[in-house]
Amino acid sequence: MNKGKKQSNLEERIEGIKLLRPSLHGKDFLLTWEKSDEDLKTVLEVASVLKEMRAANISPRVFDSGLAISNFRDNSTRTRFSFASASNLLGLAVQDLDEEKSQIAHGETVRETANMISFLSDFIGIRDDIFLGEGNKYMREVGVVLDEGFENGVLPVRPGIVNLQCDMDHPTQSMADLMHLLSVFGSADNLSGKKLVMSWAYSPSYGKPMSVPQGIIALMSRFGMNIELAYPEGYNLIPGIVELAEKNTLASGGSFSVSHSMEEAMKDADIVYPKSWAPYHIMQQRTGLLQKADRNGLKELEQVCLANNAKFRDWEFDDDKLKLTRNGSALYMHCLPADISGISCERGEVSASTFERYRIETYREAGFKPYVIAAMMLTNRFENPGEVLSAIMQRNRGRVGVN
Amino acid sequence: MNKGKKQSNLEERIEGIKLLRPSLHGKDFLLTWEKSDEDLKTVLEVASVLKEMRAANISPRVFDSGLAISNFRDNSTRTRFSFASASNLLGLAVQDLDEEKSQIAHGETVRETANMISFLSDFIGIRDDIFLGEGNKYMREVGVVLDEGFENGVLPVRPGIVNLQCDMDHPTQSMADLMHLLSVFGSADNLSGKKLVMSWAYSPSYGKPMSVPQGIIALMSRFGMNIELAYPEGYNLIPGIVELAEKNTLASGGSFSVSHSMEEAMKDADIVYPKSWAPYHIMQQRTGLLQKADRNGLKELEQVCLANNAKFRDWEFDDDKLKLTRNGSALYMHCLPADISGISCERGEVSASTFERYRIETYREAGFKPYVIAAMMLTNRFENPGEVLSAIMQRNRGRVGVN
Amino acid sequence: MNKGKKQSNLEERIEGIKLLRPSLHGKDFLLTWEKSDEDLKTVLEVASVLKEMRAANISPRVFDSGLAISNFRDNSTRTRFSFASASNLLGLAVQDLDEEKSQIAHGETVRETANMISFLSDFIGIRDDIFLGEGNKYMREVGVVLDEGFENGVLPVRPGIVNLQCDMDHPTQSMADLMHLLSVFGSADNLSGKKLVMSWAYSPSYGKPMSVPQGIIALMSRFGMNIELAYPEGYNLIPGIVELAEKNTLASGGSFSVSHSMEEAMKDADIVYPKSWAPYHIMQQRTGLLQKADRNGLKELEQVCLANNAKFRDWEFDDDKLKLTRNGSALYMHCLPADISGISCERGEVSASTFERYRIETYREAGFKPYVIAAMMLTNRFENPGEVLSAIMQRNRGRVGVN
Repeated sequence: MNKGKKQSNLEERIEGIKLLRPSLHGKDFLLTWEKSDEDLKTVLEVASVLKEMRAANISPRVFDSGLAISNFRDNSTRTRFSFASASNLLGLAVQDLDEEKSQIAHGETVRETANMISFLSDFIGIRDDIFLGEGNKYMREVGVVLDEGFENGVLPVRPGIVNLQCDMDHPTQSMADLMHLLSVFGSADNLSGKKLVMSWAYSPSYGKPMSVPQGIIALMSRFGMNIELAYPEGYNLIPGIVELAEKNTLASGGSFSVSHSMEEAMKDADIVYPKSWAPYHIMQQRTGLLQKADRNGLKELEQVCLANNAKFRDWEFDDDKLKLTRNGSALYMHCLPADISGISCERGEVSASTFERYRIETYREAGFKPYVIAAMMLTNRFENPGEVLSAIMQRNRGRVGVN
Repeated sequence: MNKGKKQSNLEERIEGIKLLRPSLHGKDFLLTWEKSDEDLKTVLEVASVLKEMRAANISPRVFDSGLAISNFRDNSTRTRFSFASASNLLGLAVQDLDEEKSQIAHGETVRETANMISFLSDFIGIRDDIFLGEGNKYMREVGVVLDEGFENGVLPVRPGIVNLQCDMDHPTQSMADLMHLLSVFGSADNLSGKKLVMSWAYSPSYGKPMSVPQGIIALMSRFGMNIELAYPEGYNLIPGIVELAEKNTLASGGSFSVSHSMEEAMKDADIVYPKSWAPYHIMQQRTGLLQKADRNGLKELEQVCLANNAKFRDWEFDDDKLKLTRNGSALYMHCLPADISGISCERGEVSASTFERYRIETYREAGFKPYVIAAMMLTNRFENPGEVLSAIMQRNRGRVGVN
Repeated sequence: MNKGKKQSNLEERIEGIKLLRPSLHGKDFLLTWEKSDEDLKTVLEVASVLKEMRAANISPRVFDSGLAISNFRDNSTRTRFSFASASNLLGLAVQDLDEEKSQIAHGETVRETANMISFLSDFIGIRDDIFLGEGNKYMREVGVVLDEGFENGVLPVRPGIVNLQCDMDHPTQSMADLMHLLSVFGSADNLSGKKLVMSWAYSPSYGKPMSVPQGIIALMSRFGMNIELAYPEGYNLIPGIVELAEKNTLASGGSFSVSHSMEEAMKDADIVYPKSWAPYHIMQQRTGLLQKADRNGLKELEQVCLANNAKFRDWEFDDDKLKLTRNGSALYMHCLPADISGISCERGEVSASTFERYRIETYREAGFKPYVIAAMMLTNRFENPGEVLSAIMQRNRGRVGVN
């Protein structure tokens, strides 16, 4: 009976998906702000249904064969496994493309490689977050090449591209974070009016991408929340994306502010996301130095940057700062791994006791990512994802068991 | 007709499995000595049935999707391929976790990583055999973390852990070796009263784990055999495991002895397992030095150890020693690769002509490992493995062919 | 209706395959010149049907589980992905064997490793093209070992070997190139009388294998074409293979000539394949130096070789040379990646504008390779590939979708 109820609930939700009118079919997922509200809602709903199916031992496999290429131009464990999990859930085998990480490939190399790896591929997941102004551009370049290959009969299918983190956005992270918020607060409506603080936090490391904070403010600003972006002076993000977030809040009935005190920002916050990043102007200089392969320049810049970071060692999220939040119990979020004081480093983004309170929550937060990626794939490949999910329910094949 | 007979034989054996009462369901497989006789019998029988099914082109696939994580903290080709084969046979895709090999991870890193890789994973196979006192401990730490993740709703399934070699035991090896013995001698009853010599053998290398000899004496001592453990003075194993083996032989009606002459030990042996290992006290010192990252200390220890090994160059298993065994034709065993004199090294564990006599046998011995691992997985995931195997027979899907 | 027509066309072609009498079943694919015309025709037809099936969303999966081992003893992206794609299309999971690239393994290491990785494997794809006289020999050594393992009950199935490039031939490349020719010219009959120029071209790199030009002249000479092999004096290929190509042309009604001027060769050519390679005598010296690990010798040889190459910088295929060909529009071919002047190097095998004319064509050419490999696998494993393809049509399972 319990199972029957769960399934009828699933079927209801799938009916809801059928009413949505996304335009995700055949489109790459590169930036959340290129996607309509209907698009985002569809991805979130499909992700949520896939998660429940998996839990109910219903296999949502829709590929009998096919490759998903993972192209990580920067290190990753979490996202790599999420991509592998999503691909596998839908029936695709992952094949890694090992490009040299420090290389900015353009032109013929990209054109050729993108075609050569895609003859029997359905998706390419790309992480390219090191060079400012390059990562997202690279993904688009690959997209144009794949279009050309498909139009000219080189490729039987146009593989979809999933942005697994670039210099601008980290959409699989921000969408997983949003799923987490929806799960904690119950609905999108409940997010309206909440205060979310995206705050810089101290870290003894250097060169952390800006894509997470940028992705968070650009996405969360669309739900009527009051977004506060806090960072020490000088640690600003890409200006255009901050402007976009501001516009979003106005349009969605929320507000947007920038401040330069972690304490001030935390006051009455409902949701806090303390996370380190390297400042925009540093990332600009770093990109220039990397492109010139100026090793000494890079070393110097690292020293300057670390010395500057050190002035803001008090930007650690700890129990005292937690007390300042709404009822002293704001939801703490992090994309992981966090720099935890006394654990992963002497002093970092978050105190050990504060992190421990939310540790399991951050794991749950991360657990949405495989389903977000799978939903991006499913909605890219199928025009009517709701119909596909219905067919999966009908087929009723167990993920585990003798079918 | 022949095929009909084979299948009815398979079905009979599956009926036998249904009568067993193992408690393997949901339990990690970390040490054979934590498992009951019924547990071991179940794994062996399931492995044997899976092997016959594969040979009869019956696909035992029970996962429509799912990941099996391989976490090799030491090099491996044989076990890596066995794990990949077992996972694939059951329908799981292998995803490698590349941790730095020399690193002893604990605490938050283990907690976080174990959860992050497990959202859609069914099994984690771990090899961690370098640090004495650490490998098995690490696996248990991962297990506790996975329990926590599952209980807190982070993980939809509690992934099972398979020990692919640790500092204490190498259960997939010893169980495969046992399957080989059963296949050569016909039954467990026939092993009773046989003399098995687990002997140290000379090798020009240093730091070989003790897990194989320890695993062999701890497991084979449960079948009424007369176990003789032979090694040059000073090359002893972890004392607690030797005591355990001794107790086992008493309980099973066999005997246990330690000797310090290869020749003496080989007399009237039915089964011989000549294999090099580093002594317990060396492994203790080595672990300490590794933990301090004391490179010079490690180099010195290696010199001392190799110089000591060199005193026992006559601990080579050759045709003369073979002649001393029962009818001059004991069964020679090795986990491979063997250090073969004149082939893989100037002088090693076994002479070239002796090894050649048994070469094909050692390959057969190794061939049981994929099925042992698959059986560990199947019995972990399903409460009634016999019922599952019956359902697989009923389904009758070919592994190769157009189904 | 259109789809109905396509399918009936597919079924007709499959009926045609049933009439062929290849002897590919259970045989490794190591050199095209060991295969009969009927063998080659079967592989090409099966490949072509698989390609159409894929395009028509018909899944040709014939393995419910099984491993395909990729053993790349030299770098590769294109062929690695082609092998992965072919394996995946048929239902096999790829497992990489990471052997040290510079090592010439023989004897016990080969015997043991080949068995250890093959317990549940169906195919081993090998690239071994660095050492002259070694690569193909290594593949045969592996084959003998696998025969032994299978005959002795070590292996339940004798894995098939696919040559993914050796010192002598590159059959998956040449067969894909042939499929491209058939697709461009319409039929094998139409190739008769055509002039194909396999020409050396300038490259600023050193040590490129001879397997592509050798594979091309050995295969294309079997179709009544007039083959011209052009290279600067001294850049000859393995003599025996050139003799073989000459014999083939005589038998097939074509002609064979060798010339030492790119311009002369290009006159009235229908098909041109300008591609760099290292001369036979250099590869001989290089192999000797590599075997002795003579680093200084290798450096010197590289200098000598590059200096010699530099004398032939005018061996670039450009628009002027293209004008010399039949109607100024011969089909340009390349195995990719090409050394493109001003793009991948200052000056290379082909001018940028000439390459750009044919860029998409070269991508299409490469796109046949996954299907050629899949066809080699299918015809190795199944005695009646036509029957298998019929059964796949009957089953009518979608590659993408909810089956």
